[in-house]
Amino acid sequence: MQYYSMYEIIDKKKNGHELSKEELKWVIDSLMNKSIHEYQMTALLMAMFIKGLNKKETAWLTDAMLYSGKTLSFDGKNVVDKHSTGGVGDKASFILAPIAAACGVKVPMIAGRGLGHTGGTIDKVESIPGFKTNLPLSEFKRLLDEKGVALIGQTKEIAPADKIIYSLRDVTATVDSIPLITASIMSKKLAEGANGIVMDIKLGSGAFMKNKTEARRLAKSILDTAKRFDRKAVALITNMAQPLGNKVGNAMEIVESIQTLKNEGPKDLTDLSLALAANMIHVGGVESSYSKAMKAAKSALKSGDAYRCFIDIIKEQGGDTSYIKDPSKLPQTKLTKEIKAPKAGYIKSMKTDEIGLLLTELGGGRKTKTDKVDFAVGFDFHKKVGEKIKEGDTIFTVHHNKNQADKVDQIEQRFFKDVLKVAKTKVERPSIIIEKLEQ
Amino acid sequence: MQYYSMYEIIDKKKNGHELSKEELKWVIDSLMNKSIHEYQMTALLMAMFIKGLNKKETAWLTDAMLYSGKTLSFDGKNVVDKHSTGGVGDKASFILAPIAAACGVKVPMIAGRGLGHTGGTIDKVESIPGFKTNLPLSEFKRLLDEKGVALIGQTKEIAPADKIIYSLRDVTATVDSIPLITASIMSKKLAEGANGIVMDIKLGSGAFMKNKTEARRLAKSILDTAKRFDRKAVALITNMAQPLGNKVGNAMEIVESIQTLKNEGPKDLTDLSLALAANMIHVGGVESSYSKAMKAAKSALKSGDAYRCFIDIIKEQGGDTSYIKDPSKLPQTKLTKEIKAPKAGYIKSMKTDEIGLLLTELGGGRKTKTDKVDFAVGFDFHKKVGEKIKEGDTIFTVHHNKNQADKVDQIEQRFFKDVLKVAKTKVERPSIIIEKLEQ
Repeated sequence: MQYYSMYEIIDKKKNGHELSKEELKWVIDSLMNKSIHEYQMTALLMAMFIKGLNKKETAWLTDAMLYSGKTLSFDGKNVVDKHSTGGVGDKASFILAPIAAACGVKVPMIAGRGLGHTGGTIDKVESIPGFKTNLPLSEFKRLLDEKGVALIGQTKEIAPADKIIYSLRDVTATVDSIPLITASIMSKKLAEGANGIVMDIKLGSGAFMKNKTEARRLAKSILDTAKRFDRKAVALITNMAQPLGNKVGNAMEIVESIQTLKNEGPKDLTDLSLALAANMIHVGGVESSYSKAMKAAKSALKSGDAYRCFIDIIKEQGGDTSYIKDPSKLPQTKLTKEIKAPKAGYIKSMKTDEIGLLLTELGGGRKTKTDKVDFAVGFDFHKKVGEKIKEGDTIFTVHHNKNQADKVDQIEQRFFKDVLKVAKTKVERPSIIIEKLEQ
Repeated sequence: MQYYSMYEIIDKKKNGHELSKEELKWVIDSLMNKSIHEYQMTALLMAMFIKGLNKKETAWLTDAMLYSGKTLSFDGKNVVDKHSTGGVGDKASFILAPIAAACGVKVPMIAGRGLGHTGGTIDKVESIPGFKTNLPLSEFKRLLDEKGVALIGQTKEIAPADKIIYSLRDVTATVDSIPLITASIMSKKLAEGANGIVMDIKLGSGAFMKNKTEARRLAKSILDTAKRFDRKAVALITNMAQPLGNKVGNAMEIVESIQTLKNEGPKDLTDLSLALAANMIHVGGVESSYSKAMKAAKSALKSGDAYRCFIDIIKEQGGDTSYIKDPSKLPQTKLTKEIKAPKAGYIKSMKTDEIGLLLTELGGGRKTKTDKVDFAVGFDFHKKVGEKIKEGDTIFTVHHNKNQADKVDQIEQRFFKDVLKVAKTKVERPSIIIEKLEQ
C-alpha cells in the first residue's frame, strides 16, 4: 500500500481541497491499525466538518469505513433496511419490519441504544424478557436468510471504524456534519448487506434536524451516496414536532407497537409505519409500484400476517412471546398521575426533545452511556397537536414509581412552562409525512 | 474555579463565536492537568485555525499560556527580547544581543533548535565547546541581572502549555495560524520577563511567511497583543529571499558572527543586526530616539564593546573563549568544493528554503527532531542577489566531509535546477529591511 502523510492530508482538507479515494482509505486503515493518532483524526474531522466533503469524498469515506470490518451479502434486491435519525416515541421499526418481512422483504436491523432525549430500539425491545440482541453475525445472517428479519445491537464486527470515529466526534463537537453522518449511516447499512435503503429523516423539535433545508441536504446526501454504490434508496422527511404515537417509554412503546400491529394503533404511527414499509417493499422490488406496495403493506397489517411475523421474531431471538400475547405482563409502574389542562384552547406545539429529557429524568432514558434504563416508566398522551382541549382535560398520564412524586411535580411544571404551547384559535393537525425524496 | 464543558467550547469556536477569557484559561489549565484529552485539544486548535481568534481572544490565550509555568520579572523597562520567525543563515542574535547589552539593554534569550530548512540558534552556539544552554531558570535570571544578557534553550519551566500545544499543532497542520503563532511567541516572551519586544519577521523564499500581507498581519497581531499587555514592541519585516550573510552552517555562522562583531561582516547581516539592536535600545528606553539608539549601537560595534560582551557571554556560560579568539579552532571540514557559474548574468533570486534543505542533506540540519547535527559542514556564498557573475565565477563553496562527494554533486545539480535564477539584465540588490511597523 502506498504511504501517505497524515499531516499533508489534514493540511489539504484544512485548505478545502478534495481528498482522494486512496488518501481516505489510508486514513481509515491507519486509524484501525493505530498508526495515526486520535489527536490527528479529530483535527481532520474538524477540518472535514468545517470545510465539508463533496459527494465523491463522502462515498470514498463510506467505502473505506464499510470495509473496516466484516461485510454481509445476500442474493437478490430484496434486502432493505430502514434508518431513522431518531426521535421521541419512535417505535415504527417494530411495526414496519414485520409488515415488510411479511410481504417478502428481508429486513436486517442493527439498532442502537438511547442517549439524551432520544430512545433506543434495543432498550425498548429488551423490555421483553429473554429477547437477545447480541446474536453473533452468523446467527443474524441465518435468521435473515430463513426468517427474513432479525434485530441486533451495534456490533464491533460491522464497520468498526464508524464506532471509533463516532466516539471521537461525540466529544469534539463534530457530530452534526451531513457528510460525516452520511458515511456513518451508509457504511453500516452497506456492510450489513442492505441492497436498498429507506431513510426516515425526522424533522422538528424532537429531532436532530431542526429545519427543512438541513433535512433535505441529509436526504440528498444519503440518496446520492446510495446511488454511487448502486443501491436504491428513498428518503421520507417526517414530522417529529410531537412524539410519534401516544406512548413514550420503553415497555409502553412495545405495548403501543403491539396495538398498532393489531391495526388498533394511533393514526400517525400507523401511517408512518405503512409508508416506510411500502417504500421498503417497492425499493426491494417485491412490488412494481408504490401503490401496489402500499396495498400489500396494508393487507399484511389487516390480515394479521405482520403481527404473526412479529411474534416469530420475538420467539426466534429468545423472547417470551406470552408477553406479546398479554402485554399487561410487560413491565409497568404501580402509580400513574394524570396531567390536566389548566385552560382551554388548541394544542399548538410541543417541545419534543424536552419530553425525551423528562422521560430521562424519570429514569426511562440515559443521561450517560452507562446509566441503567427503567423499562416501566413513561408518558401516555391523550391529546396531541391540533386537538381541542377543555380546562381539566387530561393531556397526558405519567407512569411513575413510588418516591417519584416530587419528580412528577417537576415534570408537570416543566411541561407547562417549556413544552406545551396552547393557541386560542384552531390549529391544523400536522400530517406525519412532510416530503418524499427519491434518487 | 468555574466548570466549563470542552464540548461546548469546541462547538462555540467551530461556529465562529468568541471564547471568553475564562473559557480559554479553563482550556489551558485543563490541558496542563490532563483533564481534557489531546484529541479534544486538536479539534479545538483546528477550529481556531479555520475560524480564527480575534485580538481579545489572542491576548486571553496568550495570558493563559503565559501563566502555565514560571514567570520572571525584572525592574525597569530595559528588558527587551528579539524574536525572529526563523530563516536560513540567520545568526543576527549573536550580534545584536551583545550590541544591545553593551548599550545597557537586558536581553533574555530563550532560543530553539533547527528543524527542516531553518537552523537553530542553540545548535549554532553549541559548536563552541563547553557552552551550556541548559541553565536553570535561577541562573538565567542571575546572569541577566548581573551581566545583562543570557542565552538558554527552550525550558519546560517557561510557558509549558506552549510546548504541549506546539507539539500537537506540529502534527495536525495547525502551525501557520497568525493568532496561534502570536500566542506561542508572546506567552514565552512575557513569561521570561521581557518588557519590550522587537520582532524580526522574515519574508521570502527562506521564511515561514511567503507574502507581505501575511507578514504584516503577523506583525500587527504581535504589536497589538504586546500593547494589550502594556509592553512596547516594534516589528521589522526583513528580507529572507536569500540567506542572511554569506555563511550557512552551524560553526561557519559563528565564525561569521565573530567577523561581524569585529565590524568586518557582510553588509546585510551588519545592517540587520544594527537595526534590530537599535530598536531594542530605543524600545528599552535606553535612548530617547531611534537615531540616538542607532548611533549608540554603531558605536558599541566599532569600539569593540559588543565583541567583548560576546566573549563575556561565552565565558559566563562555560564556553571556551579561545575558540572565539581563534575561530579556526571551531569545527571545520577537511574538504571544500567550489561551485562555479555555468554562464554569465546577474543573480536574480535564490530559493532559500531549498538551501536550508541542502544543508540538512549534508548533515548540518535536522530532518527529524532526534537527528544529530554536524557543526562543521556548510555553504559559503561569494555571490548574492544583484551581483554580476561571469562564467566560471565561484558562486559558493561547499564545506563537506569525506565520502560526501556524491552528495555534493547532487547539491550542485539541485542548486542550479531548483535554487538559482540568473537574469541577463541588471538586477537590483535588495535592501535587508523591507518595512518597520510600530504600535
